[in-house]
Amino acid sequence: MSFETTATIASFGGKLLKLAHQAKSTSCQMKLNLYLPSTATASKPAPVLIYLAGLTCTGDNGAEKGFFQHMASKRGIAVVYPDTSPRGLDLKGEDESYDFGSGAGFYVDATAEPWKHGYRMYSYITEELPGALFKEFKELDGSRVSITGHSMGGHGALTLFLRNPGKYKSVSAFAPITNPVNCPWGQKAFGGYFGEENKSKWHEHDATELLKKYKGETDILIDVGTGDNFYKQGQLLPENFEKAAKEAGKGVKVRYQDGYDHSYFFISTFANDHVEHAAKYLGVYDGESSPRAERQKL
Amino acid sequence: MSFETTATIASFGGKLLKLAHQAKSTSCQMKLNLYLPSTATASKPAPVLIYLAGLTCTGDNGAEKGFFQHMASKRGIAVVYPDTSPRGLDLKGEDESYDFGSGAGFYVDATAEPWKHGYRMYSYITEELPGALFKEFKELDGSRVSITGHSMGGHGALTLFLRNPGKYKSVSAFAPITNPVNCPWGQKAFGGYFGEENKSKWHEHDATELLKKYKGETDILIDVGTGDNFYKQGQLLPENFEKAAKEAGKGVKVRYQDGYDHSYFFISTFANDHVEHAAKYLGVYDGESSPRAERQKL
Repeated sequence: MSFETTATIASFGGKLLKLAHQAKSTSCQMKLNLYLPSTATASKPAPVLIYLAGLTCTGDNGAEKGFFQHMASKRGIAVVYPDTSPRGLDLKGEDESYDFGSGAGFYVDATAEPWKHGYRMYSYITEELPGALFKEFKELDGSRVSITGHSMGGHGALTLFLRNPGKYKSVSAFAPITNPVNCPWGQKAFGGYFGEENKSKWHEHDATELLKKYKGETDILIDVGTGDNFYKQGQLLPENFEKAAKEAGKGVKVRYQDGYDHSYFFISTFANDHVEHAAKYLGVYDGESSPRAERQKL
Repeated sequence: MSFETTATIASFGGKLLKLAHQAKSTSCQMKLNLYLPSTATASKPAPVLIYLAGLTCTGDNGAEKGFFQHMASKRGIAVVYPDTSPRGLDLKGEDESYDFGSGAGFYVDATAEPWKHGYRMYSYITEELPGALFKEFKELDGSRVSITGHSMGGHGALTLFLRNPGKYKSVSAFAPITNPVNCPWGQKAFGGYFGEENKSKWHEHDATELLKKYKGETDILIDVGTGDNFYKQGQLLPENFEKAAKEAGKGVKVRYQDGYDHSYFFISTFANDHVEHAAKYLGVYDGESSPRAERQKL
């Protein structure tokens, strides 16, 4: 279960580790990036923010273009950037489309053939990866973990949080797929990974459905760009998530950011806010630059 | 001379324009990125920071991975990200190596055949591009321009500044090639673009040689990573530039950043400092976060 460190790169006062390890849940080698702030030590381990990337991405996109290290370094937060799917399993049709198969694991454990053999990103992200990381990197505090993500990764962050009460200190998302059972991306993914007939399984991985049943309070931060074509096409459906939150009396703040698109230019602009949102729940927020203040400076 | 805007992308409260135009100096279409902060208007035009990229890069690398927009948006500075060379001229050998020809214009006007037909990035960056931009974009203040760059682009920033007293309000550089006549990259480029025999021309584009003759004071900020393999290999030679500065009594601050490499992880870490350095000379520095303070927060 141990990691191979293929590169150590200085970044924002800390270091970004390029890691690879053999994963049981996905039956292949998995790569990821781990950002360790300079303050992280075995005697004073850093809280952790997991960033789940979107369709077609790997663990590199967020590390290179997300700008999370900037505020994470100031707050002393470690950031984990996992890959989005298994790689090289050679399953039939695995590499045929951008929104299914490789690069599109959707953070679920597939139950349908042939995908159930390796497409188990839910188990990988919630159990195997953190288990391995916290065992090997004593600079990480496995008791303080928050999660965020973009698009498909926003769906992953929301559903992993809502399915595992108490496991994550907080959750936020950038342009997340919030109601996959009702959008083309989600229907294609769940139809393939779970089977068309298995609708109950679909609902178990739908953030809007999960929020309706969630016990306890929430404080969920979501940013969506009004210029995001996938939002306009009805792939994200944040209004459904907002409606469910209102009816269930849950705390959800969706900020519709004027003119922003679906790209990392959007993510990097609001990355500080999402790191600060996590910082509050990870116990490392000192109020110096609140998300609102940070945003208003723009 | 007018520009085609191929994309307008919201970024850090302003907008990033993807531009293309037919350039006379390079005899081809040139692409670039222009970041306009939200404060830039025709009645209150924004000062401008030009970022020159390094070998193999285009105008996209800095815009996507440099994070200059973060501080530029706070200071109300526009950022211009030009390409690094002409494209598609079909000159023999143009695309054969990463450090000569396409992607490696070195910000000079070639005098040797066949390169003198289009490899004229010096004229393009100092005259044609700013002339066209300031004519078309009234939100830009052509009287307040600073320049910075990375590696080959750091060489470009230093030499353009030193060859044109008063043209740029300030200059800084990330891991710049400071003494090209004495390093393999520079010798290959100048030998090809100027000819092996034309050593006087070589010296006219060598930052260290130019600094020795520069009249007037300087305040040049340079960051170099101690883990930078190109620094270790003697491609950058900042020590030669420092020695020349000391002997000529010029203000040059070279910060050797412990463990940093040559990548955009290094650039993004110190981008705020370089924008702030420019901000002071562009008249938009309010002291809120000095380069030193910004750095010490890391």
